[in-house]
Amino acid sequence: MGGSRSMIFADCSSSTTARLVPFGRSRLLCGGGALCARRRLHVGVGPSLPASLRTTLTVHSSPSPSLPVMNATMASEASAKVIDGKAVAKQIRDEITGEVSRMKDAIGVVPGLAVILVGDRKDSATYVRNKKKACQSVGINSFEVHLPEDTSEQEVLKHISVFNDDPSVHGILVQLPLPCHIDEQSILNAVSMEKDVDGFHPLNIGRLAMRGREPLFIPCTPKGCIELLHRYGFDIKGKRAVVIGRSNIVGMPAALLLQREDATVSIVHSRTKNPEEITRQADIIISAVGQPNMVRGSWIKPGAVIIDVGINPVEDAKSPRGYRLVGDVCYEEACEVASAITPVPGGVGPMTIAMLLSNTLTSAKRVHNFQ
Amino acid sequence: MGGSRSMIFADCSSSTTARLVPFGRSRLLCGGGALCARRRLHVGVGPSLPASLRTTLTVHSSPSPSLPVMNATMASEASAKVIDGKAVAKQIRDEITGEVSRMKDAIGVVPGLAVILVGDRKDSATYVRNKKKACQSVGINSFEVHLPEDTSEQEVLKHISVFNDDPSVHGILVQLPLPCHIDEQSILNAVSMEKDVDGFHPLNIGRLAMRGREPLFIPCTPKGCIELLHRYGFDIKGKRAVVIGRSNIVGMPAALLLQREDATVSIVHSRTKNPEEITRQADIIISAVGQPNMVRGSWIKPGAVIIDVGINPVEDAKSPRGYRLVGDVCYEEACEVASAITPVPGGVGPMTIAMLLSNTLTSAKRVHNFQ
Repeated sequence: MGGSRSMIFADCSSSTTARLVPFGRSRLLCGGGALCARRRLHVGVGPSLPASLRTTLTVHSSPSPSLPVMNATMASEASAKVIDGKAVAKQIRDEITGEVSRMKDAIGVVPGLAVILVGDRKDSATYVRNKKKACQSVGINSFEVHLPEDTSEQEVLKHISVFNDDPSVHGILVQLPLPCHIDEQSILNAVSMEKDVDGFHPLNIGRLAMRGREPLFIPCTPKGCIELLHRYGFDIKGKRAVVIGRSNIVGMPAALLLQREDATVSIVHSRTKNPEEITRQADIIISAVGQPNMVRGSWIKPGAVIIDVGINPVEDAKSPRGYRLVGDVCYEEACEVASAITPVPGGVGPMTIAMLLSNTLTSAKRVHNFQ
Repeated sequence: MGGSRSMIFADCSSSTTARLVPFGRSRLLCGGGALCARRRLHVGVGPSLPASLRTTLTVHSSPSPSLPVMNATMASEASAKVIDGKAVAKQIRDEITGEVSRMKDAIGVVPGLAVILVGDRKDSATYVRNKKKACQSVGINSFEVHLPEDTSEQEVLKHISVFNDDPSVHGILVQLPLPCHIDEQSILNAVSMEKDVDGFHPLNIGRLAMRGREPLFIPCTPKGCIELLHRYGFDIKGKRAVVIGRSNIVGMPAALLLQREDATVSIVHSRTKNPEEITRQADIIISAVGQPNMVRGSWIKPGAVIIDVGINPVEDAKSPRGYRLVGDVCYEEACEVASAITPVPGGVGPMTIAMLLSNTLTSAKRVHNFQ
């Protein structure tokens, strides 16, 4: 996510949609990059997480000279539980490590993930490296093919075909985006259904949409979002859920997943006339649009649970890299209204890779009929 | 639709959800089967329909002794345009007749639809007969296989396979429901993707859900709903749409279609806690739940457009058959609040068969590359 986006400057306070939160609090500023108080947020951990994971996170923010300083009373209003994706992902990876080892001992099979990278995008190279490292950390074999930018579609298809036929490969992932001369759709369609650990095959999506059908794989990022809700013990059934964004890889499958869990789902997108009003009805918000700080405090129903999928780089002179990452949701404002929220980074991000490992394990178990 | 449901008695007035409509009108009764005034409803016809289709429909209702009589002022408040599915379906069938004839003249090919019926359900037999008649009326060849109730799954699969291989068959339809001993999923999966005119294959549904993908076929009933909106010139883009019901054959694909048309879609279902409140936000309502008169006037935003997919038999001693058909929406109440509504019967029903013929024609054109 996010890596392909151009650098943008965005603070909550710069948005034209700024409003007072919908219950009688005096608010003078809208956090984002302009929060001045040093605040201690409670990092809550769901019931299924071990007590050892319980901790507190200290958020440092630098004062903005042009905005009034937040006083202690306002700071203490921050009450949202932080949904610690890093900790949950760690727990899931530990579980996967155990399962990989158990399978190896029992039937001598080690799950394998093949990654195909075409071209020299730095962000893609980083993602692939992270996936490889994650595989190693849980004992999954990883195979990598790195092809030059000008590789033909035919050549990529040939590599997919080899991995399709290789019994030591249980998952195949083609790192997106592909160079323009390659048709993404034909590449993704070529990946064997049984090894489509990304879950992007239309047959998988169709099964996800249909009641009584089971997809072979659930796309990693939306699966990670739902897994966070589950592990923190948040009810989904009967809740109002709003998914912001309708991409094939996050928004749409996230909406289908919430629907499968008996939420009442609305999808908000670029053509939606009143996104704020609709979002404010949600008990659960999943945002995946790639717009930094778009979802303001005023968009959020008090007590809502927020899963922020956005990973957006925004300029930050104070950061050694010159930028920092923020979500789609104005974190500081949301913390004052929501009951729980994922941070960016450290929320959904780590879950995506954990789910990729989980899908690869599932695939290996399925093909070897290992319970 | 509807045929498999048991007979029920339901008038709007018997529902516990009865409320005043949400704008200051004095309402003493809720129409349904208990309307007493003879009312003339304007049957509006969309801009793309020929003027010859413009007409008025006179609705007769008998007085109910236990309810007060509606006065003339109230009767005149009825303003909803009736969306005449019968007229639109007729127009579409005329268009198909022209296309079938043009294709036959140009390349000597006649589209063919094969229908497989298993068992002796009277309603299923009626549906199959109607489909056959509809084919004849537009010049599409129809093939029918009627198998006894105790036919094995293997035997049904054999017939599907024969039709899959038969080049004169461009569409295959297995009439549902199937007898219990036959697995619906394996039967539907066996129908060749290229002949799946019902559009129920998960690969079709997946493509329907995904942006940038095109399904080979769109399921007939939801396609008919959208076609009605299009032909009457109702905007979908940017509108709030609520789909009530999430079945694989109507609700879910209808929601996906509305989403493709850039509506902001919410799906209301049996686990939704406040269906009335959510439905009342919709500019477009598509209801497909099979609950007679469930959607009351109070559920409807003034000016909303209503597509009622429900076809529910309710007891009616005054009808020669002892029952009559009503929709999911309390028609009389809706007429006073909505700007347009499909009647039951004569709304979505005729559109479903028209869309089946359309899908069969599309299939034949595609396989012969005929524009």
